[in-house]
Amino acid sequence: MTSSDAKVLSHGPLSDDEARWIKLTKITYRDPAGTTRTWESAERRTRPATTDIDGVGIVAILDKPSGKEIVLQKQYRPPIDMVTIEVPAGLMDPGESPEQAAVRELREETGYVGVPSQTSPVMFNDPGFCNTNLRMVHVTIDMSLPENQELKPQLEDGEFIDVFTVPLADLWDECKNFEAQGYAIDARIGTLAEGILIASQLS
Amino acid sequence: MTSSDAKVLSHGPLSDDEARWIKLTKITYRDPAGTTRTWESAERRTRPATTDIDGVGIVAILDKPSGKEIVLQKQYRPPIDMVTIEVPAGLMDPGESPEQAAVRELREETGYVGVPSQTSPVMFNDPGFCNTNLRMVHVTIDMSLPENQELKPQLEDGEFIDVFTVPLADLWDECKNFEAQGYAIDARIGTLAEGILIASQLS
Repeated sequence: MTSSDAKVLSHGPLSDDEARWIKLTKITYRDPAGTTRTWESAERRTRPATTDIDGVGIVAILDKPSGKEIVLQKQYRPPIDMVTIEVPAGLMDPGESPEQAAVRELREETGYVGVPSQTSPVMFNDPGFCNTNLRMVHVTIDMSLPENQELKPQLEDGEFIDVFTVPLADLWDECKNFEAQGYAIDARIGTLAEGILIASQLS
Repeated sequence: MTSSDAKVLSHGPLSDDEARWIKLTKITYRDPAGTTRTWESAERRTRPATTDIDGVGIVAILDKPSGKEIVLQKQYRPPIDMVTIEVPAGLMDPGESPEQAAVRELREETGYVGVPSQTSPVMFNDPGFCNTNLRMVHVTIDMSLPENQELKPQLEDGEFIDVFTVPLADLWDECKNFEAQGYAIDARIGTLAEGILIASQLS
């Protein structure tokens, strides 16, 4: 079977008592003019107390003779009942640095062994709606290492991930192609592609 | 007063009965191996039935003699109790196309009058956590129009937005600077900056 066989069977309301992973929060705040107002927000319950981020996204670029390619994955995502095109990503474990989480998640999800080279600012996924956030960690992959030639991902029970690569220069067009084929585009990879497109129009 | 005077006063649990804008959902799904599992998701209650997206983000680039600059804004966001650096953005009104929403929101939030030039695939903000999504719409701004020389934003009650521009070529460094100054970086602008950075390393 493949990710495209996965499917939502039913969905319904989830009470605060029953929810284990996420929650709704009612916020009372003072606005910039001094008026007291309320706002509704969603949060994860899983962010470790040792960190200020929920997770990391990983930018892993392979230096191939034909040009640079980015490591992507296909993964079924129940909240949208679609298979997404995403960068490798995952939630923080307690005590980890963003770079440690990135190296661990990249190895678990794709099999690639890499070295962190750059870490982004904290990025907020949808800050009018929720507090979820991540850092993007850029990881360098030495393709001469035996581990990177014969990939051995270590997926958890219930995790189904197809790993592939796309030429960076074609990323925007590839995102449009993937959407036309019925895939969902994760915001990180879509906006990264958009940045590459805009840079090509800069000069 | 400015956005930096805004502040969370209190927060607590929000029940499904009380929530008006957002909700939690319990999903039962069949995974790619055929096993039935459950997942927790957050959703907006406000997506119009006429569309498949919650909102739009707007890439508005000004062609200045010194180089291209992107229109950004500072806005206090209660879910994270911080002032974000974001692209102009907003929720869809019923019956609108993404391009109509982008032109309307850009005018309301910044005063700039523009013409849509390109629309992204649907991008999912955090598809392991929620179903919220948007399209990015690129808007061309004719700086010779009088409306674009004397900006007249039309903010709603309770909306406080500071509009500014940043040179596109410096966007990654500027994101790091803004974070060092205590601002939160929205994922769209952070990842767009990352794409521009990566493109500069492509050749």
